[in-house]
Amino acid sequence: MKVFDIPGFPNPLRVRIVLAEKGLDSQVEFIKIDLPAAEHKQPAFLAINPLGTVPVLQLDDGTNISECTAITEYLDNLDGEPILTGTTPKEKAIIHMMQKRAESELVDPVGIYFHHATPGLGAALQPYKSPEWEGRVDWGNRQRDRAVDGMKYFDYVLRNQPYIAGEQFSMADITVFAGLVFAGFASIAIPEECTALLAWQIKVQQRPSVKNPA
Amino acid sequence: MKVFDIPGFPNPLRVRIVLAEKGLDSQVEFIKIDLPAAEHKQPAFLAINPLGTVPVLQLDDGTNISECTAITEYLDNLDGEPILTGTTPKEKAIIHMMQKRAESELVDPVGIYFHHATPGLGAALQPYKSPEWEGRVDWGNRQRDRAVDGMKYFDYVLRNQPYIAGEQFSMADITVFAGLVFAGFASIAIPEECTALLAWQIKVQQRPSVKNPA
Ligand SMILES: N[C@@H](CCC(=O)N[C@@H](CS)C(=O)NCC(=O)O)C(=O)O
Ligand SMILES: N[C@@H](CCC(=O)N[C@@H](CS)C(=O)NCC(=O)O)C(=O)O
Repeated sequence: MKVFDIPGFPNPLRVRIVLAEKGLDSQVEFIKIDLPAAEHKQPAFLAINPLGTVPVLQLDDGTNISECTAITEYLDNLDGEPILTGTTPKEKAIIHMMQKRAESELVDPVGIYFHHATPGLGAALQPYKSPEWEGRVDWGNRQRDRAVDGMKYFDYVLRNQPYIAGEQFSMADITVFAGLVFAGFASIAIPEECTALLAWQIKVQQRPSVKNPA
Repeated sequence: MKVFDIPGFPNPLRVRIVLAEKGLDSQVEFIKIDLPAAEHKQPAFLAINPLGTVPVLQLDDGTNISECTAITEYLDNLDGEPILTGTTPKEKAIIHMMQKRAESELVDPVGIYFHHATPGLGAALQPYKSPEWEGRVDWGNRQRDRAVDGMKYFDYVLRNQPYIAGEQFSMADITVFAGLVFAGFASIAIPEECTALLAWQIKVQQRPSVKNPA
């Protein structure tokens, strides 16, 4: 299998943690896509993922899988023993619900803030961003506030249970964790009163897969 | 089980088609949430879904599942014979990838256009929408263009395969179908040249679950 991505970026990190959790690190060849140079918006990469985002998992038969949720479903089910996406219908449902909330309430708003209210990844990428969002700083700043609200929501969730989707670590924890890494990158601080979220972050940081992602 | 929703709306339709596909119609009690009156933004409903959207599936143990993808995972796996979310790792991955694309490239842009560049659901809901998006008509209109681009993308996909995620009907077809219903509601026409998409739409309209959703 091949993974097209760039180390150190939040969505790639999600898949790299999954690979480490599943012990699949050695089965993957990484191919670096130069995001700051907008390589992911050029025809060669758009043929792999028409949405122009990383990561993409390329299977040995040439099938390209984009979207972290989809890649995680693949990798987690490969050995028939899912540990990150649930086994019962209820587990699967809660994990997918929280996965989506982790994206819509944290990763996505941080991303919009970063790309539209800060210099983001720099000049080469701006033409691909501005026409969509018009680089409106006030709107971008409002997304920063939404991201902070997201942190408060996940803090509230973690006051009653050890992990984002309940008793077990799941892909939703990975997504919230990567969202917080991204927030740090964008200089959005976790509010001090989010003590449950901060304690959970320290706990997750200690997982071998998070200490040493693929 | 209970489903909190409102008939005739696109995301509720997604789950109602799933219920019909799985033959679960009779096992569900529907509870109507008055969206035009902003009932979904009041405390009673926010306790069920803090994101304030329908549909929500409430299990008999009181667990609330929001997000159509999560609800579909639950319903489809309940009898141990998933027909909409895949069985092999590769099927699951492609279906989740296309499901996400159906949301990000079609349902979401239609929704933003509808709520921000048209009167949307009317005055009662506007205060919950405007602070987020500032009711910017030009930005809303750009989302209409994105939705049309999404239609062209799915048309391209359907030129090479019978269904959105490949050879089999899946939840991704339901999502694109509901997205087109939503687009119709918002008066965004499918471009005439999208002949594969238009033919697929007629084929999907003939499914019993789509003719008679729950
Ligand atoms: N929903 C996508 C998000 C992927 C994404 O946005 N990745 C970022 C890197 S962290 C990217 O490619 N950004 C480039 C851009 O948006 O121009 C997923 O789950 O993979
Ligand atoms: N991602 C959600 C979307 C749900 C959604 O946006 N539902 C619409 C009804 S079609 C809604 O509740 N809109 C009310 C609002 O956004 O104020 C899902 O998959 O369920």
